[in-house]
Amino acid sequence: MTQTMTEPRKREPMNGVDVPTLFTTIDAVAGQRELAKFRFRATNKWQSGTHSRSTVESFYGAGGEHQHKRTFELDADHPQVLVGADNGPLPVEYVLVGLASCLTSGIGNIASARGVKLYEVESRIEGDIDIQGILGLSDEVRNGYQGIRVDFTIKGDAPEETLREIVEQSRSRSAVFDIVSNGVPVEITVNQNDD
Amino acid sequence: MTQTMTEPRKREPMNGVDVPTLFTTIDAVAGQRELAKFRFRATNKWQSGTHSRSTVESFYGAGGEHQHKRTFELDADHPQVLVGADNGPLPVEYVLVGLASCLTSGIGNIASARGVKLYEVESRIEGDIDIQGILGLSDEVRNGYQGIRVDFTIKGDAPEETLREIVEQSRSRSAVFDIVSNGVPVEITVNQNDD
Repeated sequence: MTQTMTEPRKREPMNGVDVPTLFTTIDAVAGQRELAKFRFRATNKWQSGTHSRSTVESFYGAGGEHQHKRTFELDADHPQVLVGADNGPLPVEYVLVGLASCLTSGIGNIASARGVKLYEVESRIEGDIDIQGILGLSDEVRNGYQGIRVDFTIKGDAPEETLREIVEQSRSRSAVFDIVSNGVPVEITVNQNDD
Repeated sequence: MTQTMTEPRKREPMNGVDVPTLFTTIDAVAGQRELAKFRFRATNKWQSGTHSRSTVESFYGAGGEHQHKRTFELDADHPQVLVGADNGPLPVEYVLVGLASCLTSGIGNIASARGVKLYEVESRIEGDIDIQGILGLSDEVRNGYQGIRVDFTIKGDAPEETLREIVEQSRSRSAVFDIVSNGVPVEITVNQNDD
């Protein structure tokens, strides 16, 4: 470990991250800014009750359309205590998954770019909701989480301060952290199927 | 269809929603407000590169701990164009899944509570991200979505205006819509594993 720490940081693949390609990608976008425009999408189909199935298969970015390696199907539902059939995670649990995984992806990339070998990155994420809002029992209580906490445990070949800096850098560049912390304008449209 | 429309709205199970139990639940929470406190959670474990696996299995609410019917494991990753291995949806795609499924769950419940039979609820959701923020190429560009659009197509035994009102009511009581629109305070802590 000490040996690794005293070696110069090189742009080599590590932690499963192709660091040279990551830097090449950043350089390519820096030179051609329109490559930075991405559009992500999903479709959702109601099944029954509070159960729906989302499909994620393609996105636009880097100047073209991309298909995921496979089509991802994601069921969501309410649990029985909320009068659902528990056929999948709750929608609000998907938000926690998105936030934890975004921070962890960033930690993977940033540690690797800085030449820090990771042995373990685990996190627990939790959020509090008072469902008086959702149930229409109070206009004082918000519908969503009142607060979210993420607790990371990390093992890597760097001092604790360096590991904290990597997490902080991930936070400061996390798409989902920004979305969940700062909010995004959402537009909803409705069409009737007259068939 | 016309026949259904002229019948009085009754509190009967419909669309797969146990409407009597839904109203009983709302009444129970109205009578004992501490039942409204829920805490949702997930754990996340880094796999390699930008790939992580989240586990959703339990939550607190209605005065006690609950286990989901089964443990949900959810992989997230970056796609190849973003130098990942595409082992799962992107974290930002999980946010879209959470938002679409939350609105759809609400539509299922609200339509049923209002006695409207649903035949189809489908939605397309998309969000735009300029990855100059994430890549550290611009401090002017936000990291997260600049905007999200959700487009519903609904078929039910009610006039278009009623279907629109149901969607609007779902929006106004959606946990994930609130989270994504208005933001939530997020606290991150870091521990080093010294083992």
